[in-house]
Amino acid sequence: MMDANPILAETLRGNWVENRHRGAYVVTDADGSIIAAAGDIERPVFPRSSIKSIQALAIFARQADSQFALTDAELALACASHTAQEVHVEVASGLLSRLGLSAADLECGAHQPIDAAARAALRAQGLKPSSLHNACSGKHSGMLSVALAMGVPTAGYGSREHAVQQQVRACIEAVIGETLTETKCGTDGCSIPTYAAPLHSFARGFARMATGQGLSPETAASAKRLFDAATGHPQLVAGTGHPDTLIMTAFKGRVMQKYGADGVQCGAIRDKGWGYALKCDDGSLPASLAMLAGLLLQIAAPDPEQRTLLEGFAHQPIKSVRGAVVGEMRAVWR
Amino acid sequence: MMDANPILAETLRGNWVENRHRGAYVVTDADGSIIAAAGDIERPVFPRSSIKSIQALAIFARQADSQFALTDAELALACASHTAQEVHVEVASGLLSRLGLSAADLECGAHQPIDAAARAALRAQGLKPSSLHNACSGKHSGMLSVALAMGVPTAGYGSREHAVQQQVRACIEAVIGETLTETKCGTDGCSIPTYAAPLHSFARGFARMATGQGLSPETAASAKRLFDAATGHPQLVAGTGHPDTLIMTAFKGRVMQKYGADGVQCGAIRDKGWGYALKCDDGSLPASLAMLAGLLLQIAAPDPEQRTLLEGFAHQPIKSVRGAVVGEMRAVWR
Repeated sequence: MMDANPILAETLRGNWVENRHRGAYVVTDADGSIIAAAGDIERPVFPRSSIKSIQALAIFARQADSQFALTDAELALACASHTAQEVHVEVASGLLSRLGLSAADLECGAHQPIDAAARAALRAQGLKPSSLHNACSGKHSGMLSVALAMGVPTAGYGSREHAVQQQVRACIEAVIGETLTETKCGTDGCSIPTYAAPLHSFARGFARMATGQGLSPETAASAKRLFDAATGHPQLVAGTGHPDTLIMTAFKGRVMQKYGADGVQCGAIRDKGWGYALKCDDGSLPASLAMLAGLLLQIAAPDPEQRTLLEGFAHQPIKSVRGAVVGEMRAVWR
Repeated sequence: MMDANPILAETLRGNWVENRHRGAYVVTDADGSIIAAAGDIERPVFPRSSIKSIQALAIFARQADSQFALTDAELALACASHTAQEVHVEVASGLLSRLGLSAADLECGAHQPIDAAARAALRAQGLKPSSLHNACSGKHSGMLSVALAMGVPTAGYGSREHAVQQQVRACIEAVIGETLTETKCGTDGCSIPTYAAPLHSFARGFARMATGQGLSPETAASAKRLFDAATGHPQLVAGTGHPDTLIMTAFKGRVMQKYGADGVQCGAIRDKGWGYALKCDDGSLPASLAMLAGLLLQIAAPDPEQRTLLEGFAHQPIKSVRGAVVGEMRAVWR
């Protein structure tokens, strides 16, 4: 039990702690020097959707960006777990039709829109969601552009053995400086592979993406374009009211922030040249958000408005069915 | 970090562990002697809905059962977190009308039915859920019967200071053998108080409910009637397809089982005279179910059919959006 990560978030009900969430985080510069850390930062974890911006480098590695004239909005959506608002669906379907493809070519599967209003609108029209409403449809559309640029069949582009995923894997390895392995590999919710690597390597990878240090000049330029696109279009990277969108909007380009399923948070404080990576051991998304807020309050030098936003995530109200506040999910300060 | 509870469940994605869930459990007899245990069993935890059968003793303490001729179905529903299927709504509204009351008197608040088909049916009719659809409407109806039997105003029956909640609190204290305190108190989702007490005391309380040992003859008889009602009507204690219903159905009266919000599981192996209580530290319900299954496989002497059911909860598939099995939530055997 000596190897337990510290408690970084907890829920309070009334005057007593109800739940405890352990985790680890690390902040590094592009050399991997540690600025701040807690818990086991060498344990390999699945980054899930938190590294979509790194995966999107494959678009540039095969010049799909210039061949298909990808817009900043399309690049932002490639980095996104979007909430299926109208604009998200439009941008994804726009890219697909320019590629000569359609939603039928997406291999991510269909799920209900994350955005409640979008969900209600679909339901009111009596429509079922399509793959375009999948939070990952922008990333998948980008991967299809890579397949076309490589001149390989698009079918099966999501599978581990396909040339597209081999290219994506090579891009991740180059940025995080770790060899990914089949022995620490799973399938993500959207059916593409996800490889586990140490939290420390993802933090360093985001610092490299933010600074270009440790990357080839071409990759550095691509990383800058992706981070500029994402932080310049935070609405496209998640959606209305989503923490990632709110944080990136509030930080006006200074912070790249992306959550991943099962309690992962990755990003960069761009002006400081730092990357960060955080994982909640038990996979709780709200707990990982509280932890992230606690971390950004410490390292991101927030102005008063940014601080107010982060304090809200560091103290999330828990309500009764009748709507009374009966507790909170909160960051535990270390 | 020395006080970390052990990992009792984890999720696997592909070939790598993604999430870890810590917790504690204890199985005791009516004297409180420990049959099996893991983790910190003296830490006070909120039992939430797991002790509805103990809370329902208040009905008998004030003879509301005989005054209003409560049926076994109504008593089972008083012990329930039901899924708002038609039968649940009928039983709750039947009791309320016999009390001369209605859904307007319930103070639990309204939420969408837990049962997916019931939810879809309401939506198809263009109806909003009422307090009757609240998972706790049976418990609240029972509490209203206590207010009437006590001759006190029904309004505010859910508040900590109301005579009904004082009676409920006294019943819990008598069964678990612990004094409950305002210093470890919160408000449950359905707006009634919940008091934290050691996991060990809840296990012993369920053993006492199952055996009658350590209880007054009247309380012992009431406990037997409640456990008989609940295990005899498992469909009313949760609903179609719910683990509690499936477990109690499979064990044919031998096992009383009740989940509580935020990862609590309590119950009794009636023929052995044992009570058990389990809490997942991080509040995950699926993880607590895996832990419970692991525990019941060890202590409940399951027959082959019961074993198959429990193995399914001890290995819950995790699927991609397209429906492929990509991992599992599983009990960690200790």
